Amino acid sequence: MSHVKVKEAKPTHRAGKSSRPAATMRAFVMRRIGEVGVMNKPIPEPGPNDAIIRTTAALICTSDTHTVAGAIGERLNITLGHEAVGVIHQLGSEVVGFQIGQRVAVNAITPCYQCSYCQRGYSSQCGGMLGGWKFANTKDGSMAEYFHVNNAQANLAPIPDTLTDEQAVYCADMLSTGFVAAEYANIPIGGTVAVFAQGPVGLMATVGARLLGAGLVIGVESMPNRQAMAKRFGADVIIDHTKTDPVAEILKLTGGQGVDAAIEALGSHATFQACIKATRPGGTISNVGYHGDGDSVPIPRLEWGVGMSDKTIRTALCPGGSERMSRLMRLIEHGRVNPLPMTTHRFRFQDIERAFRMMQTKEDGIIKPLITF
Amino acid sequence: MSHVKVKEAKPTHRAGKSSRPAATMRAFVMRRIGEVGVMNKPIPEPGPNDAIIRTTAALICTSDTHTVAGAIGERLNITLGHEAVGVIHQLGSEVVGFQIGQRVAVNAITPCYQCSYCQRGYSSQCGGMLGGWKFANTKDGSMAEYFHVNNAQANLAPIPDTLTDEQAVYCADMLSTGFVAAEYANIPIGGTVAVFAQGPVGLMATVGARLLGAGLVIGVESMPNRQAMAKRFGADVIIDHTKTDPVAEILKLTGGQGVDAAIEALGSHATFQACIKATRPGGTISNVGYHGDGDSVPIPRLEWGVGMSDKTIRTALCPGGSERMSRLMRLIEHGRVNPLPMTTHRFRFQDIERAFRMMQTKEDGIIKPLITF
Amino acid sequence: MSHVKVKEAKPTHRAGKSSRPAATMRAFVMRRIGEVGVMNKPIPEPGPNDAIIRTTAALICTSDTHTVAGAIGERLNITLGHEAVGVIHQLGSEVVGFQIGQRVAVNAITPCYQCSYCQRGYSSQCGGMLGGWKFANTKDGSMAEYFHVNNAQANLAPIPDTLTDEQAVYCADMLSTGFVAAEYANIPIGGTVAVFAQGPVGLMATVGARLLGAGLVIGVESMPNRQAMAKRFGADVIIDHTKTDPVAEILKLTGGQGVDAAIEALGSHATFQACIKATRPGGTISNVGYHGDGDSVPIPRLEWGVGMSDKTIRTALCPGGSERMSRLMRLIEHGRVNPLPMTTHRFRFQDIERAFRMMQTKEDGIIKPLITF
Amino acid sequence: MSHVKVKEAKPTHRAGKSSRPAATMRAFVMRRIGEVGVMNKPIPEPGPNDAIIRTTAALICTSDTHTVAGAIGERLNITLGHEAVGVIHQLGSEVVGFQIGQRVAVNAITPCYQCSYCQRGYSSQCGGMLGGWKFANTKDGSMAEYFHVNNAQANLAPIPDTLTDEQAVYCADMLSTGFVAAEYANIPIGGTVAVFAQGPVGLMATVGARLLGAGLVIGVESMPNRQAMAKRFGADVIIDHTKTDPVAEILKLTGGQGVDAAIEALGSHATFQACIKATRPGGTISNVGYHGDGDSVPIPRLEWGVGMSDKTIRTALCPGGSERMSRLMRLIEHGRVNPLPMTTHRFRFQDIERAFRMMQTKEDGIIKPLITF
Repeated sequence: MSHVKVKEAKPTHRAGKSSRPAATMRAFVMRRIGEVGVMNKPIPEPGPNDAIIRTTAALICTSDTHTVAGAIGERLNITLGHEAVGVIHQLGSEVVGFQIGQRVAVNAITPCYQCSYCQRGYSSQCGGMLGGWKFANTKDGSMAEYFHVNNAQANLAPIPDTLTDEQAVYCADMLSTGFVAAEYANIPIGGTVAVFAQGPVGLMATVGARLLGAGLVIGVESMPNRQAMAKRFGADVIIDHTKTDPVAEILKLTGGQGVDAAIEALGSHATFQACIKATRPGGTISNVGYHGDGDSVPIPRLEWGVGMSDKTIRTALCPGGSERMSRLMRLIEHGRVNPLPMTTHRFRFQDIERAFRMMQTKEDGIIKPLITF
Repeated sequence: MSHVKVKEAKPTHRAGKSSRPAATMRAFVMRRIGEVGVMNKPIPEPGPNDAIIRTTAALICTSDTHTVAGAIGERLNITLGHEAVGVIHQLGSEVVGFQIGQRVAVNAITPCYQCSYCQRGYSSQCGGMLGGWKFANTKDGSMAEYFHVNNAQANLAPIPDTLTDEQAVYCADMLSTGFVAAEYANIPIGGTVAVFAQGPVGLMATVGARLLGAGLVIGVESMPNRQAMAKRFGADVIIDHTKTDPVAEILKLTGGQGVDAAIEALGSHATFQACIKATRPGGTISNVGYHGDGDSVPIPRLEWGVGMSDKTIRTALCPGGSERMSRLMRLIEHGRVNPLPMTTHRFRFQDIERAFRMMQTKEDGIIKPLITF
Repeated sequence: MSHVKVKEAKPTHRAGKSSRPAATMRAFVMRRIGEVGVMNKPIPEPGPNDAIIRTTAALICTSDTHTVAGAIGERLNITLGHEAVGVIHQLGSEVVGFQIGQRVAVNAITPCYQCSYCQRGYSSQCGGMLGGWKFANTKDGSMAEYFHVNNAQANLAPIPDTLTDEQAVYCADMLSTGFVAAEYANIPIGGTVAVFAQGPVGLMATVGARLLGAGLVIGVESMPNRQAMAKRFGADVIIDHTKTDPVAEILKLTGGQGVDAAIEALGSHATFQACIKATRPGGTISNVGYHGDGDSVPIPRLEWGVGMSDKTIRTALCPGGSERMSRLMRLIEHGRVNPLPMTTHRFRFQDIERAFRMMQTKEDGIIKPLITF
Repeated sequence: MSHVKVKEAKPTHRAGKSSRPAATMRAFVMRRIGEVGVMNKPIPEPGPNDAIIRTTAALICTSDTHTVAGAIGERLNITLGHEAVGVIHQLGSEVVGFQIGQRVAVNAITPCYQCSYCQRGYSSQCGGMLGGWKFANTKDGSMAEYFHVNNAQANLAPIPDTLTDEQAVYCADMLSTGFVAAEYANIPIGGTVAVFAQGPVGLMATVGARLLGAGLVIGVESMPNRQAMAKRFGADVIIDHTKTDPVAEILKLTGGQGVDAAIEALGSHATFQACIKATRPGGTISNVGYHGDGDSVPIPRLEWGVGMSDKTIRTALCPGGSERMSRLMRLIEHGRVNPLPMTTHRFRFQDIERAFRMMQTKEDGIIKPLITF
């Protein structure tokens, strides 16, 4: 990914606002694998169940850089981005209970809430594997002046007056993904949890483990700025895996038993294997890391108890929906979590390409860049 | 394992019962890796919390042959066997509510029910990984005229008068392991389940899936006698994986979605991978197969949704304890399952070595040999 | 309810089909509390997310008689009925994947699958308490030549070719409600269950308890024909509560402990109390009976362990949705349950009033009357 | 209870320590209903599975005053108390892994961990309803210089060096009971919880709701000192039910929907009913209040959705066992909760009767009196 060449997008003609036709907007797109840019696109129109949002704030996600690097295959001129909030610009005829101009947050995952997967409670797998992930995958994403929301009735979450756009936008993916890692980890009250990697998702998994009653949260991370952030977000102990064997250290910290749950927030074979080794029999490995390498991901056979250790391996994709978004925003509202320290950099939308390049290189200790419109 | 040489055990001196000292018994042992035999051992004595059972019926398990082949390392003169029932011969001073002479069943797994693992509900992992498995592992097994039961208060299950010893002994491992595979599979009522391999555990997993509400049970098996047995035990469809790709066939049978749950009852890489591929997003892979090969067991990356498919991988070791044993026996009592068709062969204890050899070779279509005393 | 006067509806003018305007249909309605009849209504038109079904088979539910008796307050000329199947007559513009003329089943409960309750997994409480129940409550029911289905994308379930309409229509309420009683009962495999009352919902709860692994199912019922039906549907033991104290009898049958779960399928104080008394500590009382009497429903204090017995009281309203309907139909398809013995009587739609009167009086041992169109 | 007459116990003869036989100790007992006192008793002796603890710190519980008032019937000269910590004085022959002199905490509930209830996971109901509660109920309690612990292997929890006795003793009942109320409440992350009554159990339920991810915790309480304490322990909002209708207020605070979970920590009909009314459909009422009044406890019928609202009523008795105790102590160790503000008063054991009388009258704003030895 660090080798991905970001082509300078051609400067979009930007005359005064009045001279640009009202029906077009600027969008940050993946032109093809390895190439991004800003281009003009028509402002989308809503169908009966849709909404169009005028974007006010957005975040860039590392997975956007994966996408540009080719992780999900070729996409031509698709708008990037899946973490955004804004105000309602237009509503489909069948969407009720919302008003034009209302501030809303939209999750990265926008399920239909109608299909068999959604009805079964696996809305992130809407219509099939990972199918709830539509933004910048099967339709244009949200890193544009306007974006389209399918199944708006279920996917628009009003932002409380007490929350800023910057706070709300963290619910779209970072809180939802980080917290589901903890929710799936089956943490007993007072139990022990190890969170492998303290990027933004791992940091929010650390917060999630605290929020869900963990008595000891161990963060595994080698970058000093992320170690400091992990402490700030509630990790009780930090292990630098470049200096010590994290599995041995975790076993030592837990009296030789291993943790009740290990959270994989990176997506590497080494980390995944360490999770299984560091988890006690009967415990849970909760994976939210994206695994991009190899035909298969290896489970260490003996530490998995030759398949009989009562260890459970769960996986999740960011859960969406307005109901969850409202609960996540409530946690910020009542002071349970403050995601703002993750905003290490701020950009205006016109500088989006520079922000994106920094997310590719992770230079200057960047964690999350906030984009305002 | 088919190459394991079973040494003929030296003929144990057997005079009339009266001439043999009361304090010795005959036991079927693993002399060392690759070698079994019958030898005299002292009849065990109970501590305050123990019981001694006089064996009346037992089954040989394929895992006994794994043990002799060296799967768990060297064991010298350890008594084999973990599936047995009998009558109470002696009781420790602290064991209450039982009588000498009472018929009891004992699970293959005999947890302490006192340690932190047991208190958390993972009694098969008593004291640590797989630690509930004591028979023929960390203490003498039950394939002897008498056997010792630790923590007898929690591990002795009275056999109802309406059940034969042969029926009850199937609860010790086959029903408990096969059923837990289904219990862990998170089957929605009317859901679809594939059970990979129809050996005795797979057959009982098939029964278990039916018992827990599966609307479609697909058995994967190539041996004709086991296919027939699977049909008899309730599989709706049989797939012969030597003639067709089981994953493709399962996808076809489920409208392209995959099953709600796949049960791995064999312990091979190929089968484990097929389970993950054949399971729908949001579904569960329930593993009870013993995995004996390789440093690691491979998860197919793409069909695992790159770690984000909401697919869950669970594992289990036969759950023990008198409470569960009583529920399993109730299922036989009220006609929910009749395990007796699995008894393809019968032997007296003096012929145990021949029986064991057949379990090693799986000749003559053997499924389970019953040993009577 | 037996005192409700059913007014003879005025004979609807029925000339040859050709002479009746295409846009009207006959509907069986509640004219006001205590009065039913057949009247002409316009055939409903679909909105973008709706469907119109031409009815082919329907069942009358005892709750229809409750409604007419005033249980949910006044309703004027509302079409009754919520158990019906048919063929698709018209589809809204946004409903995809279905064809005009396709056979479909529709659950009694038709949630929106968009609101916060639906997203949380409580779709029967769509929009608020009992809000998923729309037919014959907040909109016209399905006992008419045509009926309207809201949120059709999520509520239309194709009927497999192997199922008759009569089989499929039982999934709309009887199987869904009866089975959820068992699903909520937290039955351990081989556990013990008592089902209080063996009306059609209780009978299906009996089947559900069997399907979900109960080792002993005790049916409580006094009417001989229902006792016989309960036996046929899998009850192991029947208790006639008019001849013996059911709580004492259940305690006797369970060694003094009580059942793991009791299902309340009637809705009376006496039955509800008996459920709590007959359930062991740690067990579950699963209520699906409609409670129509009194300001409050009394929990017996001592048998509830003064509020500390680990006994759980759950409640449910028939779960809807196409995904569940498909699983229920699969259970019929593969021979897990055959609901047809419940059809004790058959009527053409023109005789609907006679059928309804019999459901009010429960004369002639009626269990369910099938209505064909 | 405020009318219970506490008879002055006859002065126990207390010569110098040397002159008292080593085998006797002083114990605070209930002489009979309505009468308490201090008396000499023999220091108990351990059986093979038991331990004897020399008490160092204890708390008085309001339920002790209920017991003296006759709540569980007559008890003659039974030692009171169930919240105590100390050092190991003697160990039974079968108890391993502990040393004489080791500091240990013991839960109020001391299950056998062997019976069918314990094996099923309902150890508080050990052997039958509320059967895990042995101290000051079916055997002498712990408010004495020494106390006896049954099934010590499972019930002794070593106190970490970093914890004081005063901290550890709060785990015996207050944290365990308060937290289980939250654990059983099925709180979604960011969900809303109302805790009715902010006595010590309610306060710990407030902490528990926070620890388990509640986004809004509403405390219902009228006493100003407890209101202040509730705020300190994390309640976001306090409702004084003597000044406003708590149900109406909760509905207002939750947009008319009601809370996801209501916790009953008092044990009155009015409070229990308010819990059901204030809980949204699909939500949970978690009861840990002791209900002492009436033959039955009334469920408000309409707000219970006539038995079909998907509202769940759970109940719990303080869960015991060393594994849980260790997790509770870990929460104190790592700063998740600090129970010490609940210690409003401190007494030496010789002043136990005065302390007890204050707990009866609740004078001087007493919450918990710490007793040291």
